[in-house]
Amino acid sequence: MNPHLGRKLRYGMVGGGPGAFIGQVHRMAAALDGEWELVAGAFSSSPERCREQGRLLGLDPARAYDDYRTMAEAEAALPDDSRIDAVSIVTPNHLHSPVARAFLDAGVHVVCDKPMTTSAADAEDLRRAVERTGLVFAVTYNYTGYPIVKEARRQLLSGRLGTLRKVVAEYSQGWLTKRLEEAGQKQAAWRLDPAQAGPSSAVADIGSHAHNLVRYVTGLEIDAVFAELASLVPGRTMEDDASVLTRFAGGARGVFCVSQVCAGEENGLRLRVYGDAGGLDWRQERPDELRLRFPDAPEQRLTRGSPYLSAAARHATRLPPGHPEGFVEAFANIYRNAGRTIGARMAGKEAGTLERDFPDHVDGVRGVRFVESVLRSAREERWV
Amino acid sequence: MNPHLGRKLRYGMVGGGPGAFIGQVHRMAAALDGEWELVAGAFSSSPERCREQGRLLGLDPARAYDDYRTMAEAEAALPDDSRIDAVSIVTPNHLHSPVARAFLDAGVHVVCDKPMTTSAADAEDLRRAVERTGLVFAVTYNYTGYPIVKEARRQLLSGRLGTLRKVVAEYSQGWLTKRLEEAGQKQAAWRLDPAQAGPSSAVADIGSHAHNLVRYVTGLEIDAVFAELASLVPGRTMEDDASVLTRFAGGARGVFCVSQVCAGEENGLRLRVYGDAGGLDWRQERPDELRLRFPDAPEQRLTRGSPYLSAAARHATRLPPGHPEGFVEAFANIYRNAGRTIGARMAGKEAGTLERDFPDHVDGVRGVRFVESVLRSAREERWV
Amino acid sequence: MNPHLGRKLRYGMVGGGPGAFIGQVHRMAAALDGEWELVAGAFSSSPERCREQGRLLGLDPARAYDDYRTMAEAEAALPDDSRIDAVSIVTPNHLHSPVARAFLDAGVHVVCDKPMTTSAADAEDLRRAVERTGLVFAVTYNYTGYPIVKEARRQLLSGRLGTLRKVVAEYSQGWLTKRLEEAGQKQAAWRLDPAQAGPSSAVADIGSHAHNLVRYVTGLEIDAVFAELASLVPGRTMEDDASVLTRFAGGARGVFCVSQVCAGEENGLRLRVYGDAGGLDWRQERPDELRLRFPDAPEQRLTRGSPYLSAAARHATRLPPGHPEGFVEAFANIYRNAGRTIGARMAGKEAGTLERDFPDHVDGVRGVRFVESVLRSAREERWV
Amino acid sequence: MNPHLGRKLRYGMVGGGPGAFIGQVHRMAAALDGEWELVAGAFSSSPERCREQGRLLGLDPARAYDDYRTMAEAEAALPDDSRIDAVSIVTPNHLHSPVARAFLDAGVHVVCDKPMTTSAADAEDLRRAVERTGLVFAVTYNYTGYPIVKEARRQLLSGRLGTLRKVVAEYSQGWLTKRLEEAGQKQAAWRLDPAQAGPSSAVADIGSHAHNLVRYVTGLEIDAVFAELASLVPGRTMEDDASVLTRFAGGARGVFCVSQVCAGEENGLRLRVYGDAGGLDWRQERPDELRLRFPDAPEQRLTRGSPYLSAAARHATRLPPGHPEGFVEAFANIYRNAGRTIGARMAGKEAGTLERDFPDHVDGVRGVRFVESVLRSAREERWV
Repeated sequence: MNPHLGRKLRYGMVGGGPGAFIGQVHRMAAALDGEWELVAGAFSSSPERCREQGRLLGLDPARAYDDYRTMAEAEAALPDDSRIDAVSIVTPNHLHSPVARAFLDAGVHVVCDKPMTTSAADAEDLRRAVERTGLVFAVTYNYTGYPIVKEARRQLLSGRLGTLRKVVAEYSQGWLTKRLEEAGQKQAAWRLDPAQAGPSSAVADIGSHAHNLVRYVTGLEIDAVFAELASLVPGRTMEDDASVLTRFAGGARGVFCVSQVCAGEENGLRLRVYGDAGGLDWRQERPDELRLRFPDAPEQRLTRGSPYLSAAARHATRLPPGHPEGFVEAFANIYRNAGRTIGARMAGKEAGTLERDFPDHVDGVRGVRFVESVLRSAREERWV
Repeated sequence: MNPHLGRKLRYGMVGGGPGAFIGQVHRMAAALDGEWELVAGAFSSSPERCREQGRLLGLDPARAYDDYRTMAEAEAALPDDSRIDAVSIVTPNHLHSPVARAFLDAGVHVVCDKPMTTSAADAEDLRRAVERTGLVFAVTYNYTGYPIVKEARRQLLSGRLGTLRKVVAEYSQGWLTKRLEEAGQKQAAWRLDPAQAGPSSAVADIGSHAHNLVRYVTGLEIDAVFAELASLVPGRTMEDDASVLTRFAGGARGVFCVSQVCAGEENGLRLRVYGDAGGLDWRQERPDELRLRFPDAPEQRLTRGSPYLSAAARHATRLPPGHPEGFVEAFANIYRNAGRTIGARMAGKEAGTLERDFPDHVDGVRGVRFVESVLRSAREERWV
Repeated sequence: MNPHLGRKLRYGMVGGGPGAFIGQVHRMAAALDGEWELVAGAFSSSPERCREQGRLLGLDPARAYDDYRTMAEAEAALPDDSRIDAVSIVTPNHLHSPVARAFLDAGVHVVCDKPMTTSAADAEDLRRAVERTGLVFAVTYNYTGYPIVKEARRQLLSGRLGTLRKVVAEYSQGWLTKRLEEAGQKQAAWRLDPAQAGPSSAVADIGSHAHNLVRYVTGLEIDAVFAELASLVPGRTMEDDASVLTRFAGGARGVFCVSQVCAGEENGLRLRVYGDAGGLDWRQERPDELRLRFPDAPEQRLTRGSPYLSAAARHATRLPPGHPEGFVEAFANIYRNAGRTIGARMAGKEAGTLERDFPDHVDGVRGVRFVESVLRSAREERWV
Repeated sequence: MNPHLGRKLRYGMVGGGPGAFIGQVHRMAAALDGEWELVAGAFSSSPERCREQGRLLGLDPARAYDDYRTMAEAEAALPDDSRIDAVSIVTPNHLHSPVARAFLDAGVHVVCDKPMTTSAADAEDLRRAVERTGLVFAVTYNYTGYPIVKEARRQLLSGRLGTLRKVVAEYSQGWLTKRLEEAGQKQAAWRLDPAQAGPSSAVADIGSHAHNLVRYVTGLEIDAVFAELASLVPGRTMEDDASVLTRFAGGARGVFCVSQVCAGEENGLRLRVYGDAGGLDWRQERPDELRLRFPDAPEQRLTRGSPYLSAAARHATRLPPGHPEGFVEAFANIYRNAGRTIGARMAGKEAGTLERDFPDHVDGVRGVRFVESVLRSAREERWV
């Protein structure tokens, strides 16, 4: 249960109907630690599918709503001891902003999938709404939930690798190698439809993860970007491949290689950072290990769960080393920390430092701005 | 919720007090898919700690029992729509048998940690009780819950690697490199105390996992074993290291390398099997991949979640390839399948083939017998 | 011995004095197969060190020359049955062009380290000289000598990975993380001195290898480049880091990540190529294996020496699989093939197809042009 | 050239006719550093093939002898400044002993392939002959020539991993998965013919390498062995698979897993050693790296060529880190050191400590005795 409230946090979900991948991930992530409880939802644009999903999840039928507006109003009208404390938004991108607004206005804390919105202007609006209401707003940049990513951040902050010089971030997937969007694959269809995805496909979908990861781990600010976007699959109009060069404040340089048409790649997010005293290397597909390299000393391999890790990494860990944790556990770390921060705020307390370690509305705004800069640079073929 | 019952399965837990590692794993595994619900427990030999754990888990205080006997009786007396359907037994080994008996007698299905019992005679007794009552009995040999282990089994059953010739199973850990049992580490203390662990330490703890894995994946029957046990840490009396050679029915040979004093190893369970047409290699620490090797063709790396995998492997998978699943997810597969088989039985239905794929009392008996044979061979320094 | 001549090929060396790294590599590469014999040299700008090296290598003292001009003249004046057939040029870059000219003019075949020259104009001059004289000119882009790189080329040529879409080439080293050029490290000193290295440091030194590798393996022509160069080590004037985006004829895109200040990296040359039917991945630090990835089939790992490889890969192999070959063996493949082509030409014969597989003056020119384009794009901050 | 003699060492070869694998390896290993020169040979039991090989290698036809006895006599009769200093014996096992005797009697230093002989009695005889003549006798247990294996030895000698407790050595190959001995494969034919191979096949061929490696790296003495041998390929009479348990003096335990029928394995020699302070892991197929593991600190990966390595490892290295060295280079280290020790002895000097680091007749005897013990234990099914 939520330690600040002495009960589970009650939440509702918008999106995540039967068969939707990311909704199911959010539910498993919320369930894992027994601190969240799903009690309501508006799971689909089809009322029938909403009700079906409510049944499958064992919800009270009265709380399987036809649409998110009804849900926001109805939940707000419920008594304190039963209405939802928070909402999870797992819809296509274009709905993030209106749904989030509706629930913030209803006094409900928000967990929202990334990217926060499809335009920087909307993101700014949302940020102001969050600040005005004083509610918690978490963005599920889930890769920063990995314990070893938290360790990477601490290693860099500690100065052990010296002054940072170079960042190489790659995110290579292959799932869009074929025109799935024509083949009825639902996720591909909306991600490659500007009306639902917004103006960017690959960059908004996975480039934004890489950007957030770099930001979280290194703390570096981007001064300028140069980008090249491509639609490498014939007939596709939105970008499925992007290369972005960056100049960071302070002089470090970066390369972002982002693609969804690297045939045969699965979910190849990787981050390498080099300072003047050493480098680090992390791969999402082997999330439990971090490699540190040094000019004149052996490479070190740090593993999740080990006693020598930082408090932040240990806080985010459930199992001993050698007992693999994965994607859901990292995702659950966003939920656990967001939930505890929500619980603390509801209880009028301050959440602990380690509990406040999750991506929020400020990270969300930063991500949307990165996407916009990349689009502009590619269009103008120059550094912006 | 449990699809055969249309509600969550209610379960209680024996053992798994505050700070216990494996109890927490069982609870996460049960929670992950939203098909099990914890409603009762006798978590510790200390009534106070029982109550504390009940509070932390948000249980009804009336169902945080002082001891397992009270719990079995009290739950049996509850009405059908509230009493537990099943019990999870996560105590030290010596209690598995009496606790399981108590709940079987009370008509409660059982999920029991391995090894099933500390003697083959007890295991046989338990098996008879299971058969008599018609209840479900699952043993959490959790490593066979990995989707890719299921794929390994299918590859071998399909005959693709030919007639089996050689099995190399290793389970190397390093956590008992120091005398933790003297240092107040609770798990080490009971695992190296024959009164609680039974006559074997390393073999019963992790050798039994390796044995079950070999059995599950290859289907081979052991004809004879030769074993060498050692207590490599000075002052220790129970074995912390074991090497076991095996002769399988049909002529194949096996080697089991089991140790808990391989300093620096984490949880190094690995299985290699060679037939006359190829070999396979699986490592628990990279559980999402299976390597197949062939005499005159490139090595293949199969990854969890891929479309080319067998139905059994796909059934056990929650995420696409490249999105790592881990230890808890594999453990949850035991719970999900056991729970569905329980649900089906309660509903008077037959569970599906894929749902019946979990280790049961027969596997449990087999495991205890393996341990006994190993002990005897080592004592007599000969093949038995 | 050289199979076309029935004797070893006699060669001299320019550069490669005591302690020089690359000269020793050339000598080992030439010695490995017993087809080349070192008989003369002008190893250093210091006559004393020339003589010392001649002594250490067991040369006839009369053929340890004070400088390359004397050597070219004196060797040309020797009788046919003793003078050198070929020369190896292993000097700093600025000398490649004059030394090569001197020996071509003397009728001597040339093996020259890369880059061929320090300007495209010089490279063109040299190309004309080669064509005029009809002599063999090999450039030691040694990484294309690896058998598995040859296999990669054949896999792509065969169309197995479909139409090419994306190339990711990286060459990450860390040896220039500190200002070795100030610390008296000889190789660093000349590579970061424009008078000896030419106008480019990192790009000419290792970017040119990456470029040649991409060209050799994919056959793709570059239409345009966008480059960002940086001197990431304070106080350094030449570039030690480069990122290059490329547009290939036909629409494929490329990224080249080149750096010599990735602290802790050793010799991280890696090539990934993706087509619409699959991708390949090769890493120089594990040169004996090639990974092929496919959208809906297991990854394959091809290993050097295996019977299923192409004739070109098998021709370049000396040992069975599992018996590692390395850098020297790949380098020796350049020597063996260049030597056989030289031998065949001297014998008035045609070398076999597999024997003509080594980088030549045309590749050399292409490489120098790539360096010049990169420098120009970086200067002008635009696609060129 | 040989630094102690100021000229190359002249050697002859017995065995290694056209197409023989290991003879060619010895020649490349001897050629690599330019310190050995092949001048004579008796390459085959067929005089014709002897002459053909002599021609192909560019030998003086007078020194391509019909058989090894003629060669030993004729070379002994040549003047000091032309006769061979040493002989390489690369024949099937049964000839090692008589050939070695003939050349020792002729005052010629010996490099002999492993195992030294086919019986311990013969090995003892040979050892006495070596001691009597004062000649150098090297046995090409080539895997101890890897620089990183030398580093492993130094790490253990330094006590960094504490008191040794456990050794796991495996040597898994797959090349004998099929009955190549029936298919005319020459090497398989003699290795599985007791008249040529001696009483053991897999153990003598590769088990002896594993044994030497363990001995070299750990220095441990074996007190007792228990072995299980098997002929896993139907119709084969000699063993193609062996499992050996060992008890070392001082209480450490060992497991040797040796097989040539692990379908799909290439040359899988691997050594793991665990002490009470840490463990090490080395794999021949990635020979340039050594992993050190510790109970409470990150795993370290040491790489060949790095400045932090021991003098012995650096002495054995030709290239910087990241520039892979392989099998031939390790083999060449045996030749270089043996050659320098021979040269020193011929020059009446003492070779340096690092130069005397190669396997000699004492190691050879030890290896043959290991094979005999294993055979006896397997026959008697008990510890011996």
